[in-house]
Amino acid sequence: MTILEDKPGTHAGNDIFEHLESEVRSYSRGWPTVFETASGSWLRSEDGKDYLDFFAGAGALNYGHNNPILKSALVDYIMKDGITHGLDMMTTAKRDLLETFERVILQPRGLDYKVQFPGPTGTNTVEAALKLARKVTGRESIINFTNAFHGMTLGALSVTGNSMKRAGAGVPLVHATPMPFDNYFNGVTEDFQWFSRVLDDSGSGLNRPAAVIVETVQGEGGVNVARAEWLRALADLCSEREILLIVDDVQMGCGRTGKFFSFEEAGITPDIVTLSKSIGGYGLPMALTLFKRELDVWGPGEHNGTFRGNSPSFITATEALNHYWTNDELERGTLRKGERIHQTFMNLSDMFEGVSTRGRGLVQGLVFEDPSDAQKVCAIAFEKGLLAETSGPSDQVVKLLPPLTISDDELEYGLNILAEATAKVRS
Amino acid sequence: MTILEDKPGTHAGNDIFEHLESEVRSYSRGWPTVFETASGSWLRSEDGKDYLDFFAGAGALNYGHNNPILKSALVDYIMKDGITHGLDMMTTAKRDLLETFERVILQPRGLDYKVQFPGPTGTNTVEAALKLARKVTGRESIINFTNAFHGMTLGALSVTGNSMKRAGAGVPLVHATPMPFDNYFNGVTEDFQWFSRVLDDSGSGLNRPAAVIVETVQGEGGVNVARAEWLRALADLCSEREILLIVDDVQMGCGRTGKFFSFEEAGITPDIVTLSKSIGGYGLPMALTLFKRELDVWGPGEHNGTFRGNSPSFITATEALNHYWTNDELERGTLRKGERIHQTFMNLSDMFEGVSTRGRGLVQGLVFEDPSDAQKVCAIAFEKGLLAETSGPSDQVVKLLPPLTISDDELEYGLNILAEATAKVRS
Amino acid sequence: MTILEDKPGTHAGNDIFEHLESEVRSYSRGWPTVFETASGSWLRSEDGKDYLDFFAGAGALNYGHNNPILKSALVDYIMKDGITHGLDMMTTAKRDLLETFERVILQPRGLDYKVQFPGPTGTNTVEAALKLARKVTGRESIINFTNAFHGMTLGALSVTGNSMKRAGAGVPLVHATPMPFDNYFNGVTEDFQWFSRVLDDSGSGLNRPAAVIVETVQGEGGVNVARAEWLRALADLCSEREILLIVDDVQMGCGRTGKFFSFEEAGITPDIVTLSKSIGGYGLPMALTLFKRELDVWGPGEHNGTFRGNSPSFITATEALNHYWTNDELERGTLRKGERIHQTFMNLSDMFEGVSTRGRGLVQGLVFEDPSDAQKVCAIAFEKGLLAETSGPSDQVVKLLPPLTISDDELEYGLNILAEATAKVRS
Amino acid sequence: MTILEDKPGTHAGNDIFEHLESEVRSYSRGWPTVFETASGSWLRSEDGKDYLDFFAGAGALNYGHNNPILKSALVDYIMKDGITHGLDMMTTAKRDLLETFERVILQPRGLDYKVQFPGPTGTNTVEAALKLARKVTGRESIINFTNAFHGMTLGALSVTGNSMKRAGAGVPLVHATPMPFDNYFNGVTEDFQWFSRVLDDSGSGLNRPAAVIVETVQGEGGVNVARAEWLRALADLCSEREILLIVDDVQMGCGRTGKFFSFEEAGITPDIVTLSKSIGGYGLPMALTLFKRELDVWGPGEHNGTFRGNSPSFITATEALNHYWTNDELERGTLRKGERIHQTFMNLSDMFEGVSTRGRGLVQGLVFEDPSDAQKVCAIAFEKGLLAETSGPSDQVVKLLPPLTISDDELEYGLNILAEATAKVRS
Repeated sequence: MTILEDKPGTHAGNDIFEHLESEVRSYSRGWPTVFETASGSWLRSEDGKDYLDFFAGAGALNYGHNNPILKSALVDYIMKDGITHGLDMMTTAKRDLLETFERVILQPRGLDYKVQFPGPTGTNTVEAALKLARKVTGRESIINFTNAFHGMTLGALSVTGNSMKRAGAGVPLVHATPMPFDNYFNGVTEDFQWFSRVLDDSGSGLNRPAAVIVETVQGEGGVNVARAEWLRALADLCSEREILLIVDDVQMGCGRTGKFFSFEEAGITPDIVTLSKSIGGYGLPMALTLFKRELDVWGPGEHNGTFRGNSPSFITATEALNHYWTNDELERGTLRKGERIHQTFMNLSDMFEGVSTRGRGLVQGLVFEDPSDAQKVCAIAFEKGLLAETSGPSDQVVKLLPPLTISDDELEYGLNILAEATAKVRS
Repeated sequence: MTILEDKPGTHAGNDIFEHLESEVRSYSRGWPTVFETASGSWLRSEDGKDYLDFFAGAGALNYGHNNPILKSALVDYIMKDGITHGLDMMTTAKRDLLETFERVILQPRGLDYKVQFPGPTGTNTVEAALKLARKVTGRESIINFTNAFHGMTLGALSVTGNSMKRAGAGVPLVHATPMPFDNYFNGVTEDFQWFSRVLDDSGSGLNRPAAVIVETVQGEGGVNVARAEWLRALADLCSEREILLIVDDVQMGCGRTGKFFSFEEAGITPDIVTLSKSIGGYGLPMALTLFKRELDVWGPGEHNGTFRGNSPSFITATEALNHYWTNDELERGTLRKGERIHQTFMNLSDMFEGVSTRGRGLVQGLVFEDPSDAQKVCAIAFEKGLLAETSGPSDQVVKLLPPLTISDDELEYGLNILAEATAKVRS
Repeated sequence: MTILEDKPGTHAGNDIFEHLESEVRSYSRGWPTVFETASGSWLRSEDGKDYLDFFAGAGALNYGHNNPILKSALVDYIMKDGITHGLDMMTTAKRDLLETFERVILQPRGLDYKVQFPGPTGTNTVEAALKLARKVTGRESIINFTNAFHGMTLGALSVTGNSMKRAGAGVPLVHATPMPFDNYFNGVTEDFQWFSRVLDDSGSGLNRPAAVIVETVQGEGGVNVARAEWLRALADLCSEREILLIVDDVQMGCGRTGKFFSFEEAGITPDIVTLSKSIGGYGLPMALTLFKRELDVWGPGEHNGTFRGNSPSFITATEALNHYWTNDELERGTLRKGERIHQTFMNLSDMFEGVSTRGRGLVQGLVFEDPSDAQKVCAIAFEKGLLAETSGPSDQVVKLLPPLTISDDELEYGLNILAEATAKVRS
Repeated sequence: MTILEDKPGTHAGNDIFEHLESEVRSYSRGWPTVFETASGSWLRSEDGKDYLDFFAGAGALNYGHNNPILKSALVDYIMKDGITHGLDMMTTAKRDLLETFERVILQPRGLDYKVQFPGPTGTNTVEAALKLARKVTGRESIINFTNAFHGMTLGALSVTGNSMKRAGAGVPLVHATPMPFDNYFNGVTEDFQWFSRVLDDSGSGLNRPAAVIVETVQGEGGVNVARAEWLRALADLCSEREILLIVDDVQMGCGRTGKFFSFEEAGITPDIVTLSKSIGGYGLPMALTLFKRELDVWGPGEHNGTFRGNSPSFITATEALNHYWTNDELERGTLRKGERIHQTFMNLSDMFEGVSTRGRGLVQGLVFEDPSDAQKVCAIAFEKGLLAETSGPSDQVVKLLPPLTISDDELEYGLNILAEATAKVRS
């Protein structure tokens, strides 16, 4: 890797990554250092340099790295030999989680969902959701949206937009048809003009879909934000035509946009919801698939997986729910900090040509007309000790996903770095 | 759930599982108690009953529950704020793991494999393997074997045999053609008669396969053991026709059959190997995809996943490799204990009609002509404090997967329970 | 069949159709009489009633029934024992056809096409076109248009819009994505807004297409006419992105819209053209697939078919080309008569609410807001001795496809019947 | 084409084939002359040379070229302006055909089939059969056999074995799984060992099939003859498991093996039967799909096609049924002549190493161990005025399909040529 070769001595002994790890590795290329410890909003490399984390495990670390409240519960559980690997057996850890999830999340929101533990990754909960939607409806086809990202296994990949990732499938990806996400035509076209028309035209050639899968904010797709009214219209469109609505809340759920579920603001109730990333709280693998009670047509064991019962994550998940979701402090902080980023980015947009912004809550994007600018900003930020990633089909968006627990000072510190980097690149 | 209703009072407060968790749950139905802690070969329920574990997390706990050596390293790592969630960044935890894996596993076996971290579950490493095989060859079709089990996401499910699980896909599963596993015809038919014939007949109608995916012992499929000579012939057949050979060692790897890789005994070198379950050592989610260096045609990020870098599992994996795989003690113990089970099961086969046995190392099956007998044996065993599961297309096989670290006394204790249960059922 | 039962005695002896022929029969239900002979624009039933034919074999009889010029050549050929069934052997009949087709059709238009005989039906030439496009490009996906009709075999059906016909496939129809045909949004949306956007967005999730298949006028789809500028823009869009353009001229070719090829008016040169229906001239099965010389990557016999060399149709095809296409008389007549129908239909549209019209050349549609009106008009027309069919996703369009050789008086006669029927239905 | 260049002057003016016709042409390459007329068992080239036809339009000319009895009826029909192109309207021609088919074919055999006119080609009737089987059963998967040939459109191609032809699809061919045809393992393996095992093993991974499609003799596949007992066992296997049995009798029906249907000898009643090729009698395009009355679940127009009502072929079909199938003369002649060929081929097999024979009725194959020998024999035969073709995956079989109406002298003449050619090649 040439980046490493540029820094002889700094990473002595790191040839092992290049020698042994597959070329598929990616983040390690943009952040060419070896990380050792982490705490809160910070990572530290083995050579002692600190990095403020505006990426937060791609949204898996909403409560920060090694959150001490969760860590304490986790270590206690491990020390007392709580079940680690529980398959889908009944355990006290799972019972606590279920009870807490119902009490803290479902009941207050009036959601009568069943809960499935589908294997502890985002792509696995998406696969479970698609399988269930197809089983319930007896139809095969799924509607996804332009620039969607749902995962890397074959079912989830078929509803993902990115052409490079799709090409990795090695088989034609079928049974999915993309529709335009909100604002795909910059507002010049009526919402759902195309989608509702082909659904209602029996000669359109569109296979009748089992479900629509949607992200309320497309993180990987470039921080594309669906308006609440667009989501409501989508929910109505699905409901009227008996198409199931799946909200993939893997990245935007667990408070990323403010409320626990990202769809709450729109006032809709999806038929199926996928959760992963931050649901475990501590960055440990975990996922849930939620669905309306009447959709629970699974047979026993029809979808399984060895690590469904990753109990340490149940402990930290329960602790996180109890600590962060029994009042609205976290939500208010998220909105306030999101607004702070937004103001900064608006200022940058005003100051520099070819720069704009979009986002919601604590997912905020700084959009560059020239994609290479976004890369440069992130590279400069890394040099200055800030981790930020690009997203979007051309990687033209600097995407901010800081921990929701970031302090105002930390946020300010990071935004200053981004402002400086933007100025350097665009001046 | 009727099982719970049979035991009023015992599980008061456990309605939450029935009320909130999806009908997809399965193990909890056969083992109707709530587990709380675990250690070594034992689980303990919240009401204080101990259960000897002959299932070991479906093979994910080869070193036992909460192995103290691994626990110590794990807690140290957590306490010192080691990176928990590392994406695919370079970390000291990953470097240690890679170095250890190369030194302890790959180099001594002369294996020049690249290592991919594909997301921390078995189905994910299988999906990565299939994608890579298709990308390398430019072909779509995969050969799988009768009664194979490879996972629940769409790609892995298409190469899985079980018809109930396949039906869950909701779309026709294509691009895979099953071939007879070893001994499918009880030896009356020449090995690979059908497979080699259709491969070599340009008019056979078989799409030319990218790869063959095989388990050396089919665990879920009913403890079907492939002979070493069959595996060698399969490897030759693939090599001669430029078809990639994928060994799915998710359940049989990490020493389950004796040596680290289950294919070592046959003396073959697969093109691609999948590992998960026990590779993390402690039951924490982790998976690896190994492949010959020249097959590493992945582009950066072409297959990714949020929990690729589940670093706590890297720590326990490294510790397990260092502790258990730098000498042959574990391997010898596995073979010895496996032989002990085999003898017990041979005796049972001799004593009772309709009972037979098969297995290798510490995966051993007690096969009942009448599938309901196998269920009954497991139910009795549970009552007596032993966890054992059935497998096979009719669930006719009591499948033993005890921890490799089980003591001789524990093993004897459990075998006695099984012998009594068998006697009760078959007398 | 209730229609027959309504008319006891009239069709004595015709129970055989109901008894023996499959329920799949359709035209016989709307036209409940038994036809015996035909000549020019007329069919005669066995009970001696004459029917003016405004359907012309669904466009297969552009030169009328049993055209005497073609009949004479056909009978001569049969009488002198010309080859009837010629596979794809070289025959004098095929040579004459090829020479004539090149001289009369290709050379004057500057078209350097190769000619394939793909089996003598429309669906077969479409299948050949799709296979060739996929072979040339190495891509699987095809773009079709809303309300397209291309045929009933699996490949052609996958690019056809009608949901009832698609359901007949019994397998999910994949590898095709519909795009909006011209004027699908009544002009409120920019042409190709959606199509060009998803093609150019690498994150759209649209599989890159091998080809676009389009009808210049969608006959079965409801007489939807693509404007010349839309076709030109489509051709440009394809050319710029190296996507092959297939014009399915099975129904609209051979002069139906005026010129021999329906795409000539737009000034475009498709990469692949399909012809069938009227290419044989006399209503005998025949089809051609035309493609640019550089696309001829077929291997010998890679697409074949028993009736490729249906030589009697070669004789009548050659005669039709020589007689009708060496001057512009037929073309001018088609345009003149088309204009005559258009005026009549415009008058009807002006006179009656809920009636409108669209068409090109001698494919003209009378569109009813209430689909049942279209059915009634056709039923009344049948009673009055006129055969006309409905089309469109709701069968809301009375579609006129009279022989191009129809006389002005015949045309007037038929239009009067339709005017009366419309008046009766809409007054 | 080099063959033409070898014979300058002979085929002056034939450059048009090379210049204009696609490279897909095949028979014209092996028989490099231009045919002009034909009668009975003979074709005549334009330069006056006569060729005895042992190929008979690939089985489409069972009653010979331009059979005078059929020709007379055909010309009468054309001269009196009988309907030529009848879509699926009721016509006197179709009524006569249906009545005759029921009286002469169905009733004497006790077959209560419905009759569908699916479009006039073999591939079209196969597509209709597959669609119907899928609709009836609600399953997608089809079982085909090694070296099957069923047609070139996408559905039919997916159940065809030849890898070169499959590659032409340009998309992965799915939903079909090949099983070994009779004698695929030279008798060393029990019939249906593999097929019945995977059907009955719920863990086999075989998608449950809607239907089995089989040829009783595989013509294109190399004259592979299924034994009557094998066909009976197949029919039983299907019936017991509620899988539909489709006999593709496109090439072997209409008396090719003796009786009208090739499956009669086995005493089985398929659920669905496809007919084409010789059903029209005169070599004109026509096809039928027959199925048990209770399977007629088609909706009106659910499968259609422009040339379903190719009425001239109805006339010649009716005449052929009346003339050839109201007594057993043709059948007895077929068996007698088939036996004559068999004796000749047995003698050749005895005389020459590397030569063997197989066949049934008037489909007989002379099999060469060295495929190039078969090519040479056909090339020599062509030089001597005999048309014969090779078949089989390596084109190693000289396949004889003479007209059933061939005279004994003609047969003897042709066999002598083949014997001489074989002697020349193998001596």
